Amino acid sequence: MLTKRLFSSSSASPNLFKIGSILKQTRTFTDADVLGYSELTHDANPLHFDAECAKDAGFNDRLVPGMLVASLFPRIIAAHFPGAIYVSQTLHFKLPVYIGEEIIAEVQATSIRRMKNKYIAKLSTKCIKCNGPLVIDGEATAMLPSLVIEPPNLASASS
Amino acid sequence: MLTKRLFSSSSASPNLFKIGSILKQTRTFTDADVLGYSELTHDANPLHFDAECAKDAGFNDRLVPGMLVASLFPRIIAAHFPGAIYVSQTLHFKLPVYIGEEIIAEVQATSIRRMKNKYIAKLSTKCIKCNGPLVIDGEATAMLPSLVIEPPNLASASS
Repeated sequence: MLTKRLFSSSSASPNLFKIGSILKQTRTFTDADVLGYSELTHDANPLHFDAECAKDAGFNDRLVPGMLVASLFPRIIAAHFPGAIYVSQTLHFKLPVYIGEEIIAEVQATSIRRMKNKYIAKLSTKCIKCNGPLVIDGEATAMLPSLVIEPPNLASASS
Repeated sequence: MLTKRLFSSSSASPNLFKIGSILKQTRTFTDADVLGYSELTHDANPLHFDAECAKDAGFNDRLVPGMLVASLFPRIIAAHFPGAIYVSQTLHFKLPVYIGEEIIAEVQATSIRRMKNKYIAKLSTKCIKCNGPLVIDGEATAMLPSLVIEPPNLASASS
């Protein structure tokens, strides 16, 4: 397997994905999103639908499903690298996400290797609340068809 | 933190979750599911919508999003333990899942500890195709309100 490590370079094009590059996406999940997730996945956990159940479990209110929040990571990757192949993801759900809270998802390149005509990127993936605390922490690996960061309609990029 | 390790016991009730217990759910993802996932998550990766793009990337056809397949794990946990809190998940996407393929998701208890009035369960989580190959491998941790396996309408259990 031919691999080549690519290093960060300050002379690289600003729209080229390199070690340290960060891609971000902000989203506020609604009641309709949680209902849509439940209909799609058939996940009927009462923590997402019954405020009393959520309070009995020690939360302030109903929770947004963790996997719905975590879906921001492959969305960001695909938005900037159409055709990217998602290889792995670790997820640590640190704090609850409530309906109506603004969440910022970040994907940061920690290593990039070339393999034939693709790139294997290791990524630090996190979601934070807009007032600071970390809600999801983890790492992903994705196979990117190119290192050129596409400017999608639905996401914003900074590197 | 008060913790107590619970061991598997052959004398335990068959509907009590113990080390080695397996919960399963079978599902075949449709075109409508993939479209619903994209609408919900705003993930527009062409691998899920453009067969030519998927073939160019080395696949046989359009892929079901990995996170949609992986949503079977929290669904199984919540179906049998309403009110369960999802703590962590690792996911290794080993093989593509195509639209129309039957997928069997399995969650198996590898360790269970009591913490106050809840239970911390470590779980082996995998998805396989009905003809055998492993498509997603990983581990999850969930906080269960009880070890009694609920008999849901939408899932099947074996222990």
